[in-house]
Amino acid sequence: MTMNQQILLDNRPAGEATAANFKLVQTPIAELQEGQVLVRHHFLSLDPYMRGRMNESKSYADPQPLGEVMIGGTVGEVLESRHPKFKAGDAVVGMGGWQTHSVVDANVFGALRKVDTTHVPLSHYLGAVGMPGVTAWYGLVKIIAPKAGETVTVSAASGAVGSAYGALAKARGCRVVGIAGGKDKCDYVVNELGFDACIDYKEHKDYLSLSKALRQACPNGIDGHFENVGGMVLDAVMLRTNAFARIALCGMIAGYDGAPLPMTNPALILVNRIRFEGFIVSEHMEVWPEALQELGSLVGTGKLRPRETVAQGLEAAPDAFLGLLKGKNFGKQLVKLI
Amino acid sequence: MTMNQQILLDNRPAGEATAANFKLVQTPIAELQEGQVLVRHHFLSLDPYMRGRMNESKSYADPQPLGEVMIGGTVGEVLESRHPKFKAGDAVVGMGGWQTHSVVDANVFGALRKVDTTHVPLSHYLGAVGMPGVTAWYGLVKIIAPKAGETVTVSAASGAVGSAYGALAKARGCRVVGIAGGKDKCDYVVNELGFDACIDYKEHKDYLSLSKALRQACPNGIDGHFENVGGMVLDAVMLRTNAFARIALCGMIAGYDGAPLPMTNPALILVNRIRFEGFIVSEHMEVWPEALQELGSLVGTGKLRPRETVAQGLEAAPDAFLGLLKGKNFGKQLVKLI
Repeated sequence: MTMNQQILLDNRPAGEATAANFKLVQTPIAELQEGQVLVRHHFLSLDPYMRGRMNESKSYADPQPLGEVMIGGTVGEVLESRHPKFKAGDAVVGMGGWQTHSVVDANVFGALRKVDTTHVPLSHYLGAVGMPGVTAWYGLVKIIAPKAGETVTVSAASGAVGSAYGALAKARGCRVVGIAGGKDKCDYVVNELGFDACIDYKEHKDYLSLSKALRQACPNGIDGHFENVGGMVLDAVMLRTNAFARIALCGMIAGYDGAPLPMTNPALILVNRIRFEGFIVSEHMEVWPEALQELGSLVGTGKLRPRETVAQGLEAAPDAFLGLLKGKNFGKQLVKLI
Repeated sequence: MTMNQQILLDNRPAGEATAANFKLVQTPIAELQEGQVLVRHHFLSLDPYMRGRMNESKSYADPQPLGEVMIGGTVGEVLESRHPKFKAGDAVVGMGGWQTHSVVDANVFGALRKVDTTHVPLSHYLGAVGMPGVTAWYGLVKIIAPKAGETVTVSAASGAVGSAYGALAKARGCRVVGIAGGKDKCDYVVNELGFDACIDYKEHKDYLSLSKALRQACPNGIDGHFENVGGMVLDAVMLRTNAFARIALCGMIAGYDGAPLPMTNPALILVNRIRFEGFIVSEHMEVWPEALQELGSLVGTGKLRPRETVAQGLEAAPDAFLGLLKGKNFGKQLVKLI
């Protein structure tokens, strides 16, 4: 009998998350019921939103229950199916969680989706052609809605969301400027992702200094910004916004560990007549087909070449996740499970 | 020869504005050129935005030039006209500034507008049926766009913008809750302006305490908010917003005197998927006719009974203005010039 390896949330973090918050267990895999599909996960996605769910307090999502498998996106292969739409060998994407296998009720709308790996590698369905890619698409297309020639910026530019954002913005004729941590990441953002410029925030001691660097990289000001981080980066960007700038707010990674992270000068929202919008991509399922089509085409034609950082084996997931929260990954953080 | 009394900006404030920043002068009134109109001002409007323009730094508006008449809205009566559309005796509204008379080039679009004082007292064209009223209208109708039954809030609720906002929100079937400073203002907001509730922010030492009071007054949460102040009030409101709340940001009065006023927990924009929008009503002239029609009808039918605080004589303008910045006025702050 095949055993399922699982990582549970064992206890909640007090402040910073640690490996001791997680627990690895083995459980038997139950026999399939009618309508169910057994999936062997090839890759597990690690994403910043998971940190928010580890807290007790209700955010936009319910907290991750204690003693249950950590939630998370997965891609894999169908091993066995009792659902007419799936058969053994199908490549599928779903929310299988931090475990080697999952038993999915395939009748639940959106629970499992077949994908085509002819032009797009399987793992990219967790990144550029998956939730992070659609996140970039929604923020850029639906909130920022840039005109050709406008300047748009993004924090965490080398990550899964940022890299997709860059390609989507270039496809719309924008000047796109990234903000990332470290020279390696910035070089990658410019040389491989095709951004017009990238600023290393680690070279700046405060938001005023970072803002000066942004002024150089964005000589016509900033018309749209996609925020994945919050804090100093957002403060610096706001100082450089043009009138009627749009800011899509998708992540506040720097604030998850407890202390609220203030916005230094919210009066700029008025001064520059900024439209600010927070969003969660899972609440906008209606855009997924259009977004995935464009993202798949950008990857298939080589215009978007996302990088991945791959940890090996389920037991490596907690450390890889903690590294992600500190920005140690380079591109999309995955765990390879086979 | 009639002399014009004028108040100039003599020097810029270092920190808090004071009466010494202003200077009263007398100047002769030049003879009218073709197309010009001489107006005797009856009322001068005092508004918080004037404080922003006293600073050197460019905000959304250019700074008020030193040595020139302070800009400001005025209503009055045509004394003499060399423009075919205006004749002596006409009641007019314009941007005459802090002076007893103005010579207006009536060919400039929007410089001077005739108004009907049959149902609406002249002074109200500077308040409920003028710029502050349209400001409330734009924020409520175009940004918040509430559905009947939703809960909407406003800071500085007893002021010119807040009182119009309350009447407009009630006309749309909303629960409307004000925030104001002091028991007298709160009583007025509920008893005379018809708000469902009003919270005295002076009774609360911090935003958490104010937020608890808001929870009581808004049992179904807050769907829309109009911000005239910033700081503690905005922080408290943000904690009580429902998912997909809209916040119209129109004033940050508490921040004008120098120190930037941070937003305590901007992550709430993401957590509650808030749409935040800063705006300046003069950039949306296309809505003025529709807004003024509704506002005039609310005043004409007695559904909106705005209160005014009237200082007497041009020389009283500086002190009245400084009092406005400290919230000493009750309703629309005017200076009566005749």
